[in-house]
Amino acid sequence: MKITVAQLNYHIGNFDLNKNLIINAVRRARGEKSDLVIFSELCICGYPPLDLLDRYDFIEKCSQAVREIADECIGITAIVGAPVINPNKEGKKLFNSAIAISEGKIVFSANKSLLPTYDIFDEYRYFEPERKFGIFNLKGMRIALTVCEDLWDEQPFDNKFEKSRLYTISPMEELKGQKPDLIVNIAASPFSYTKTETKENIFRNKALKYRVPVISVNQTGANTELIFDGASVIVKPDGEIFRKLPFFEEEIVTFDTNSILSPAGSEKHVNPDPVSLIHKGLVTGIRDYFNKSGLRKAIVGLSGGIDSAVCLCLAAEALGNENVRSLLMPSRYSSEHSVKDAVDLAERLKTEYDIISIEKPFRAFEEDLALLFTGRNPDVTEENIQARIRATLLMAVSNKFGCILLNTSNKSEAAVGYGTLYGDMAGGLSVIGDVYKTDVYKLAAHINRSGEIIPENIITKQPSAELRPDQLDSDSLPEYSILDDILYQYIELQKPPAQIIEDGADASTVDRVIRMINFNEYKRYQAPPVLRISSKSFGAGRRMPLVARY
Amino acid sequence: MKITVAQLNYHIGNFDLNKNLIINAVRRARGEKSDLVIFSELCICGYPPLDLLDRYDFIEKCSQAVREIADECIGITAIVGAPVINPNKEGKKLFNSAIAISEGKIVFSANKSLLPTYDIFDEYRYFEPERKFGIFNLKGMRIALTVCEDLWDEQPFDNKFEKSRLYTISPMEELKGQKPDLIVNIAASPFSYTKTETKENIFRNKALKYRVPVISVNQTGANTELIFDGASVIVKPDGEIFRKLPFFEEEIVTFDTNSILSPAGSEKHVNPDPVSLIHKGLVTGIRDYFNKSGLRKAIVGLSGGIDSAVCLCLAAEALGNENVRSLLMPSRYSSEHSVKDAVDLAERLKTEYDIISIEKPFRAFEEDLALLFTGRNPDVTEENIQARIRATLLMAVSNKFGCILLNTSNKSEAAVGYGTLYGDMAGGLSVIGDVYKTDVYKLAAHINRSGEIIPENIITKQPSAELRPDQLDSDSLPEYSILDDILYQYIELQKPPAQIIEDGADASTVDRVIRMINFNEYKRYQAPPVLRISSKSFGAGRRMPLVARY
Repeated sequence: MKITVAQLNYHIGNFDLNKNLIINAVRRARGEKSDLVIFSELCICGYPPLDLLDRYDFIEKCSQAVREIADECIGITAIVGAPVINPNKEGKKLFNSAIAISEGKIVFSANKSLLPTYDIFDEYRYFEPERKFGIFNLKGMRIALTVCEDLWDEQPFDNKFEKSRLYTISPMEELKGQKPDLIVNIAASPFSYTKTETKENIFRNKALKYRVPVISVNQTGANTELIFDGASVIVKPDGEIFRKLPFFEEEIVTFDTNSILSPAGSEKHVNPDPVSLIHKGLVTGIRDYFNKSGLRKAIVGLSGGIDSAVCLCLAAEALGNENVRSLLMPSRYSSEHSVKDAVDLAERLKTEYDIISIEKPFRAFEEDLALLFTGRNPDVTEENIQARIRATLLMAVSNKFGCILLNTSNKSEAAVGYGTLYGDMAGGLSVIGDVYKTDVYKLAAHINRSGEIIPENIITKQPSAELRPDQLDSDSLPEYSILDDILYQYIELQKPPAQIIEDGADASTVDRVIRMINFNEYKRYQAPPVLRISSKSFGAGRRMPLVARY
Repeated sequence: MKITVAQLNYHIGNFDLNKNLIINAVRRARGEKSDLVIFSELCICGYPPLDLLDRYDFIEKCSQAVREIADECIGITAIVGAPVINPNKEGKKLFNSAIAISEGKIVFSANKSLLPTYDIFDEYRYFEPERKFGIFNLKGMRIALTVCEDLWDEQPFDNKFEKSRLYTISPMEELKGQKPDLIVNIAASPFSYTKTETKENIFRNKALKYRVPVISVNQTGANTELIFDGASVIVKPDGEIFRKLPFFEEEIVTFDTNSILSPAGSEKHVNPDPVSLIHKGLVTGIRDYFNKSGLRKAIVGLSGGIDSAVCLCLAAEALGNENVRSLLMPSRYSSEHSVKDAVDLAERLKTEYDIISIEKPFRAFEEDLALLFTGRNPDVTEENIQARIRATLLMAVSNKFGCILLNTSNKSEAAVGYGTLYGDMAGGLSVIGDVYKTDVYKLAAHINRSGEIIPENIITKQPSAELRPDQLDSDSLPEYSILDDILYQYIELQKPPAQIIEDGADASTVDRVIRMINFNEYKRYQAPPVLRISSKSFGAGRRMPLVARY
């Protein structure tokens, strides 16, 4: 039997685009004499559709698209992912389904049983978990058709408070008695730089355990903060990889099931290193945010520091240098090298830039507030005014010329609240808000891997917000290597503070850092969406009460 | 048997405060010779603790608090709500439990079975649903102990796409065979002005169906956006109300179960009208946001319009007039009456105010941008600059004097994106972001119910943003009565657009309004938390993809 795997880039709610993508792939697969073409989870509507799933009009459009695609499946079967109405009187109103369509009809469907409801996932908000399991029989091939998490009944965990079995059911244990020849898994699995091996191993272990091939079909491209890494994998019954599709790229491949079953033919396979994956992921994230918003142009506030430099490079790569402009906004506290370094970078990238001093509006604000502030010393107020003037200028250019402002805050700053709300925290999309400062340096090195793009001085200078004379980040924060280590343990690993200290961190630093994290939830609440590259990003995947005392 | 109901105001993560509240009520109940004192859902840690539940250190503190309270329960039993670790190898790591404690020990516990995972609720994110059900036997009384949603196995729904049975289990149907004498329900049920009757009826119907009394114990007070309305209710076996506790206030009452069972003694009971509940709810929301953040002072940008006027009144009521200040920031486009009306209100409320013209910074920005904007006409850019100057001034005063900026946008504006990000959309808390403009007028009338506080001219003038000459809201938006009607049908009732048109709204207006709603998701993503008073508020209860095409 010939099978085609279609790893594609869908757009939430854009039924015409998704339908055309799918129909084109069906036609191509048919041209290659394929018997079955497999698409990914909820490909009909894009993932995650969130509360659009609560709208009856949205679900009707999904059903309509499935019918139209089914009409194209002549002489071939397609497996697509779509939400379908739960016909039972009780339970959530939808199922998250894998639907096999052929000759204009639905010939089989399997509903997702294990519904991830953690981190960025909210599936039990919408879907009823399936409790019955059947085999899809296609031309004598007995297919165990599963949806994403259905194969994740056991998963590795990051800290001792987590459990490896989040569910009381294992779909494959239910299905194994029905003797499947093949496991198909359709997924919408977002990228996390720490999980590439984990994901691959889930599929390899299932193949080995049940002694059948596993075909996993993930999607690629980004929908706002979530970046789907593709990397669909076809595993032989011995757990070896037959084929792995690329990270962050569309690809359609057709192969014969006999070749998966033959003992020969495993692929020598090495995953790219994490930094290059993060780089490619972020570029994908920026590109799709713009493409899918129907916008082309970005603006970046360029400070002469490493964060905005890295963001400008990523944006220029994603959108083309002609679509990215920057604004340099020196103040009385800016060092000379800031403007020079920023200009140097903008020119190397052949991107447009303008220089506007913030001195005039800063003086106007000072004059306006002088009476009210009489007798009070300068403090963070005046620093914030400068940051907010810059945001106002950036948004003005953004409004006038139709650009989206890219936010350039990093995860370390966001974590401890080292940033100004409505100032440097502004923007339509946060490019590196899930990248710790120490990893921003690695990204910079990666960007410079074949020659200096980011000027060396930007990389080597001491980080500074330049909002008061001779200010350095290290005046207010621990060294970034120490800070990031604590942040990672507290945020990603969710270690108790006492454990972080026991594992070697300085107690008073841990206390101080955790107090800063908790105190600044209110700032992050109003931050732009953050391109997610880790296992725990700020935003929808991390939901914290604001007025808590903790 | 004597039972005490404790309707109290908890603070998330503030274990000392919650523990003391509970222990004081236990002592008081014991003083009143009560056998049982009942607290509300997750009272140990406050509701909703959100992802703090993922932290082992947080759960340990919950257990510790339960132990300390148990030690105080000498000669009395208490029922408290707390997260407890699921001891099973499979499933989510926690249960949401009602724990009966006495003489230093846990004597019974019932875990929540129906886990609301919709709107603002995320309980399946953390908790395993219980599938076994037992009766708590206390001094011969057989108590069916349930947690909130456990009694909501059937619920009314707002549109035809919803189902009345979201769950496949009914805890009371499981328990009825064990012949309970009494149903106890501990809850953390937030206010919605459309649901007061619904909630009451849930309890009345269960009492009637199982012919036993129902004691429901809700909490009060607010945690960020969620305002718990209290209104705990004790229902007789015939479905009549024996006692209803007040809305939005703490109260502890003790009564004898015999008096609930006696045919006489139902309470004549009328719920307050929705506008007065909304008013009291918002005041509670503001007060607790400040109290629980450890802050006292608020600042409001006062425009002379009705939105900021209502917000100032609510803030003054919540925090005391001495703790609320306002800033009037006229521009070249401000009408004369704007400043006069605003001053008039501030003086009537005896609140401090300052007047700062935005002309100087506005001119500074115009000059800074003149070269870049050469040959381009004024547009929304210049309007946004004015709004952002005001936010910068408000935040400067907020920073310098330690106030929280209250946001004064209403729900109609937020829905259609009629506001400036980092401008009038700024603030720590949105006071009326869940109140449609037409309801803001009702609130104003309610505030003026015993005499004019808000000057009549503020109420009767045509709404205007005053960001360009002679601007009126009605230049850009449909009349608010028409707009709000469409918004309510689309947002609260989730009606398909075709249905809204069929039900009488103008087709092109519906199209335009829905396009505005969908287009502006990106703005609302960065809006402050909104005090929730409806069944569908912007914020955590409504999760929409940003780059969707829909």
